Amino acid sequence: MAQDAQRPAERAKRLPRAVREKQILDAAVRVFSLHGYHSASMDEISDVAGVSKPMIYSYLGAKEDLFLHCIRREANRMLEAVQAGIRPDVPPDMQLWHGLRAFYGFVASHRESWVVLHRHAITVGGPFADEITDLRGKAIKLVGGLVVSAGARKGLAEQVEFSGEGLAAALVGAAESLADWWLDHTDVPDGVLASWLMNLAWLGFNDLVEGQLWRPREHDGEHGADQA
Amino acid sequence: MAQDAQRPAERAKRLPRAVREKQILDAAVRVFSLHGYHSASMDEISDVAGVSKPMIYSYLGAKEDLFLHCIRREANRMLEAVQAGIRPDVPPDMQLWHGLRAFYGFVASHRESWVVLHRHAITVGGPFADEITDLRGKAIKLVGGLVVSAGARKGLAEQVEFSGEGLAAALVGAAESLADWWLDHTDVPDGVLASWLMNLAWLGFNDLVEGQLWRPREHDGEHGADQA
Repeated sequence: MAQDAQRPAERAKRLPRAVREKQILDAAVRVFSLHGYHSASMDEISDVAGVSKPMIYSYLGAKEDLFLHCIRREANRMLEAVQAGIRPDVPPDMQLWHGLRAFYGFVASHRESWVVLHRHAITVGGPFADEITDLRGKAIKLVGGLVVSAGARKGLAEQVEFSGEGLAAALVGAAESLADWWLDHTDVPDGVLASWLMNLAWLGFNDLVEGQLWRPREHDGEHGADQA
Repeated sequence: MAQDAQRPAERAKRLPRAVREKQILDAAVRVFSLHGYHSASMDEISDVAGVSKPMIYSYLGAKEDLFLHCIRREANRMLEAVQAGIRPDVPPDMQLWHGLRAFYGFVASHRESWVVLHRHAITVGGPFADEITDLRGKAIKLVGGLVVSAGARKGLAEQVEFSGEGLAAALVGAAESLADWWLDHTDVPDGVLASWLMNLAWLGFNDLVEGQLWRPREHDGEHGADQA
């Protein structure tokens, strides 16, 4: 790294910029997730990345810009993971199930991303909180599409057009809040979280206390609930 | 107010401290909700409150302390309103219904409180976000009590002990997220919001698309759903 600091241009030539940026962002997400925005130091990010501080500044800017880059990359990765998990050819409940599995699966395997996105970006506030508002809006739009298509399948397009976005906002808030709770209860497997939320969102509490459970199906049939 | 500035001690004698503090906090909540934390000025708060700036500093501290006092007061008012709305003598679904009605009723009649608590406290971050985390924890505990008591009535105490707090976290996140969505969709009446969430949380989406609706009952019977 001392070499890096002395000959940034020379080292930069050896690795494409995209590779360097990935190294920097990976390191930054790790360091920000460990220490939070205010306590994280550019020195430690430089150490972990194996990239000189001048090169970090030149590629991704100072700490505030770097944190914004981290939030944007992790937000996009999360949305892409959830979107990739949703299979549009299955019934709406299975789509929601796949989406929830993909979301909690992402949080389980990218815990640092979630800590940065949820805990730190919100706690620091300012432009970072705006990014999270933007991410939440995109998630609501994605889930809203599911709700509307579920309603349309049942001939309820009109009702769902009125309430669909509100229900989607509620669902996204529920998923997010449960993932936040999870950070302090890591002994619960991610599949269990997805199934709690699926049971709450799809069947509701009344069905739960009546002993009904929603379970994913091998052969994607139309009805998800185990009707007694 | 010019008088105030000149003779704060004299004016302070005329009104009890609690009354003065209420005037200041009411004004501060209004000004913070309008302009956000950073843009709000102590001059405007002093003008709206009709209390001199030196007296504000002496009673409730500088801007940061004043904002913290606002958040704490509004958080307590909201929790008290929801707690007062829950009648422990009715079945769990009606308890949840009353709690949701009380929550959205509070947000409807104290929009400024909600804007300060939710939008601004989170956006500014720092110690203010910690207060909101604390408020959320209390709300989860409150709703968790409902979930556990609903489970116990059905002989499901053990299952609900494991999942109850997680479900409560999901429900609180859903209620909060829908209230946030509401700030941009104020044409929806607060009772409609409560009923959307009740239908989602109690009946679930499967029942909704099957045309079932949860409705509050005149005579608090045991079953909330309109079974077809």
